[in-house]
Parts: sequence; structure tokens; C-alpha cells
Amino acid sequence: MSNDLTELVLAGNRRAVARLLTVVEAQEAQPYLAKLFLHTGRAWVVGITGSPGSGKSTLVTALARHYRAQGKTVAIIAVDPTSPYSGGAILGDRIRMRDLAGDSGVFIRSMATRGSLGGLAQTTRDMIRVFDAAGFEYVLVETVGAGQSEIEIVRVASTTIVVEAPGMGDDIQAIKAGILEIADILVVNKCDRIGAAQTVRALRSMLEIGHPTRTSHHGQWMETSHTSAAPVPSMWVPPVLQTVATENRGIPELAEAVESHRAFRQGQPDDAEARERARAELLERMNSALLKMAYTLLPSDVIEPALDRILAKQADPQSVVDDFVTTLFPDKITRQG
Amino acid sequence: MSNDLTELVLAGNRRAVARLLTVVEAQEAQPYLAKLFLHTGRAWVVGITGSPGSGKSTLVTALARHYRAQGKTVAIIAVDPTSPYSGGAILGDRIRMRDLAGDSGVFIRSMATRGSLGGLAQTTRDMIRVFDAAGFEYVLVETVGAGQSEIEIVRVASTTIVVEAPGMGDDIQAIKAGILEIADILVVNKCDRIGAAQTVRALRSMLEIGHPTRTSHHGQWMETSHTSAAPVPSMWVPPVLQTVATENRGIPELAEAVESHRAFRQGQPDDAEARERARAELLERMNSALLKMAYTLLPSDVIEPALDRILAKQADPQSVVDDFVTTLFPDKITRQG
Repeated sequence: MSNDLTELVLAGNRRAVARLLTVVEAQEAQPYLAKLFLHTGRAWVVGITGSPGSGKSTLVTALARHYRAQGKTVAIIAVDPTSPYSGGAILGDRIRMRDLAGDSGVFIRSMATRGSLGGLAQTTRDMIRVFDAAGFEYVLVETVGAGQSEIEIVRVASTTIVVEAPGMGDDIQAIKAGILEIADILVVNKCDRIGAAQTVRALRSMLEIGHPTRTSHHGQWMETSHTSAAPVPSMWVPPVLQTVATENRGIPELAEAVESHRAFRQGQPDDAEARERARAELLERMNSALLKMAYTLLPSDVIEPALDRILAKQADPQSVVDDFVTTLFPDKITRQG
Repeated sequence: MSNDLTELVLAGNRRAVARLLTVVEAQEAQPYLAKLFLHTGRAWVVGITGSPGSGKSTLVTALARHYRAQGKTVAIIAVDPTSPYSGGAILGDRIRMRDLAGDSGVFIRSMATRGSLGGLAQTTRDMIRVFDAAGFEYVLVETVGAGQSEIEIVRVASTTIVVEAPGMGDDIQAIKAGILEIADILVVNKCDRIGAAQTVRALRSMLEIGHPTRTSHHGQWMETSHTSAAPVPSMWVPPVLQTVATENRGIPELAEAVESHRAFRQGQPDDAEARERARAELLERMNSALLKMAYTLLPSDVIEPALDRILAKQADPQSVVDDFVTTLFPDKITRQG
């Protein structure tokens, strides 16, 4: 049974992929994932993040359509609660995605961002591996760019696109200061609107503030070359692109920028980033495993009296936890000290 | 030394508070926090969240000014990267907060949202306790309402205010579907703008969609009574208020709604919510402690070869973690099985 589903996924069977994704969300897919892992590493994972209202979903759709026109297969994971194909979107329209819906070279999956059992990044990673093993060439992961989610996306994506729209207020500008750090490619979407040039300028100057070394290294601001024959640079400078996703304007250029970044990443002699990602994932999974163990080892007849003491202000939460750990793992603690 | 600082904080010494907050951010405040915990539980913690551009910071300032006019002391924790008093805000103006700056009854602290060692919620909780122990009567916690941060704020706040502005797009509407679940009070700020009435209507209908029982329980939509003499209802219905924070319009009504909610919460026979919060905090702290232990128990000569195997696709990350856990805690695993 486990073998069957694994084989079907590897053969690219659509229903098997759908079934396994559900098992992934239920956190019961480890036997399958352990087998599939060997067959992963071929898909290119593109993260798309940005403020609500920037037109991310439309951009994702346009980019997916572009890849399809080139005969490439695309999986889309929407972890954005504002995404029109996400279950969380009450008022969102699903019209934009309709022309992709009947295409067997496209697979769209939305993910609940709340109550995700194993953590958002973990579940997203596992889903990406299912798509990767099933032979999808691009996996597009869309998240909303605020709070922690944009940090999580960068941990799973190989190329991160940050999308902005013209004429957003100072507050939005400010949020970008954080988001810019994670962008491999910046996109000003809806650039037929008033203020587009200004937003492009603002983004470029914020990039310079955030990464002064980038400009000083190059002497002047360097746009990424969009011809794949160009020599791979030793340092990546995030380009600022302009698109009108509703009209497909700028989408081929965006796809080319993704390829340039891919060539850059793959051309690096030693992918230290891949190692750091593997390390982060290992620690996250270790964390989950230990927490599961703690749940098992601390039954309610231990937890409830502890809560009573905390609520009565007889003990502070950290001291209670320190006592638990000392009791549960006396030998480990000694080794630590 | 530890005693001195604790005593100074309890006496409300401003410099001692500032010093301890820095120690909290460095995750080294446990000896102090353990002593202070006994003296906490008096401050009322109000969380303020909402989309960037909704004018949250101005609203927080206006609310703080209102409390000050009543002679109450206020601490403000800004965990919002878009907040004008946050370090993350490159373009943000700090002008709005200026009139509060010289007031010794106000303490403003912004918090880095990135690389927070012990997790955002944890550090926020600890900071709140410092302010609480130092005698601040209100602690206002401002975060941006997207991603995970609005879920984290609700875990630390006793009253959660969700702020919105008129005329935001469908995407913003959609995000609210998630945010509404956590709101005790909804505010449409900037309600002198076009579309305010429409936004109020939209929020009310979304509240009804999200919580149909709320309307059916009451037969009709029930606004919260704003007189503190009113009987405490058995169920809280989030009111939708309108403000123009820049002109202090609607601020006294907002403060009254906070008091109503406080009376409601404090009037509940058994505060099950407080217990669930304490439980969540206990598990989070347990999680941190176990992760720290894992770091100590897994030296780099164990981790690095494991990473090599993962990067060479010889082993999947979860299987590696399962092996680690079995090796480190053989007796615990047996007990689990």
C-alpha cells in the first residue's frame, strides 16, 4: 500500500499526489516521504510573497501560464490566507485561476495557515517534496508578506520574489525594509498605476540602505543580466522588475530573472545555503519530536497541578518547566552542566 | 544585584525597568522574572492589531493619551515592524509619539520581530510582566495583523482590538476573515474617509458569517453596552466602533469598550481562557527548553555528518531525527511505545 502510493506519485499520478498531500497535512506521510526523498531535488522552488493588494495571486497565475506555454509543469502551493484559491478567502474571487484549472500540467493546492500541526514551513517542505518527486518542474509557493510567514517561505524557496504595488503608504514602505532582506527578485506589479516609477525608485534606494555593500561592490547599481548566456556573477543583486500581471506585461522578463537567479545559485561552488537550510530543518524536526515526547512524558496529572500553581502565582512558568526538565532528563541535565 | 534590580522594578524605577527589558530581550532575565511573577496580574493587557495603513500606531497613541488624561499609567510594546516607533521603520515618522515622550507615566518599548531568541510571544509575555510588576496599569501591545503575529498577540492580550481602515481591497477583506476570529473589539479607523459605513457593514456581516451562533443567541445583532453599570453579558459580542484617531474621535468610546470587555472577562465565573493560556505558555517554554537540550546533546560531530547524508539524499531529515531521538532517549522512547 505504502509502496503503491509512492510508485504512483513517482509516476506523476494526479490522484495519488492529491491523496498524499492530504496525508502530509495530517502529518502521517513520513513512510512515503522517506522513500520519495531520494527522488527530490529537481524541481525549482519559487516563493512569492508581498503585501495584500499587491496582486500576488494574479502574478502567480501569469507566471504559471508562462511556464505552461513553455511546456513546463507547475505546482502551486497557496499558504496565503488572502489568496483567492485559499479556503480562508471568503470574498476572494476564484476567476483568475479558472483557465489553469483544467490543465493536467498544473496542480494547485491551498494550505490552511492556522492550526497546521507540524508548523507551516514543515508542511510546505513536505508538500514541495511530493510535487518534486512527482516530476513537477516548478513549485510556486505563495504567502502573504507580513509577520513570520515571509521568513518561513525563504527557508523553503530557492528563489524568493517579493511583490509590491505602486502608491502604498509609508507603513507599507516600512514593512518592506524587512521583506527586502529576503528578496532575490523584486516586482512592482500593477505598474500601469500612478506612482509606479516612484515605488521602483523607493525600492531601489531601500535596497541600497539595506545592503550598502551591494552597490559599493559593483561601483554602481547593477541590474541582473537577463540573457542566460551572460557570465554568472559572484554576487546576486536583486533586480527590481515592473509587471502588469493582469495583462501579462513583464512576465517573460520575470521568468528570465528567475532563470538567472537559478543559474546563479547553481553556479555557486559550494551551496552553503543548502546546508544551512538542512540544518534549520533538522533542528525544527528535532524540536517537534522532543515536544511530542514531552507531551507523552508529562501526563495531565502532572500538568494540571502545575497550572494550578501558576494561576495561583505560586510558581512562575519557567521555573515549572525547569523542574520538569530536571525530573524527566536528570542524566542529560548533568551532562549539560 | 538580582535583588536590587527586582526591588527597583517593583518600586517603578524607570531606569531599572529599561535595564530589565534589555535583559529580557537577551533571554537572561529568568532569575528576575521568577521573583517578579508573584507581583503580576494587575495590569490590563490590550493587544492592537490590524493591516498596515490602518493607523494602528496613531490609535495606540490616542488611547495612551486618553488613559494618561485619566491619570493611569501606560506601557506600550510595539512588536509591529511597520510601527513608527519600531526600529524596523526606516521611513516611518516618529512625530505622532512625541507628545508622549516626556511623560514619566508612559513607557514605550519597541521590539525587534526578527531573530527574537525565545520567540515573539515569549519575549512579549516577559516584557508585559516587567511592566505589570513595575505598576503600569495598562500595557498596550501593537502588532501588524497578518501572518502568525496576530495569533501570537491574542495569546498575550486580555483584550484584542483589530483595527481596519475604510476602502481597503478584497484582499484585505479576506485577511480579516482570519483576524475577526481573534477580535474582542473591532475598530474602523480613519472613518472620516469615503467608504467607512461600507467597511463597518462588511465587518458586521463577516462577523455574522464567522460566528452565526452569536447572532442566533441574541436574536438580533447586539451592540455592547458602553455603560459600566450595565449587567455583564454571558457572551461577548465584538462591537464595531468608528474612530478618527488623528482627531481623538471615538477614543473615549473605545476606552469604554475596553472596560466593558474587561468587566466581561473578569465577571466570568471560571476563567478557562487563563488556564489555556498558561498551558500554551508552559508548552512553549517546554519546547524551548527541550530544543536547548537538543543543541547541547547533539554536538557538531554528530550533526555535520548527518547533514552530509541529507544533502547527498542518502537519508531524509525525519528519519535522521528519529534516529537521534532513539539514541538520545532510549528509555523514554520505550515508555512511549
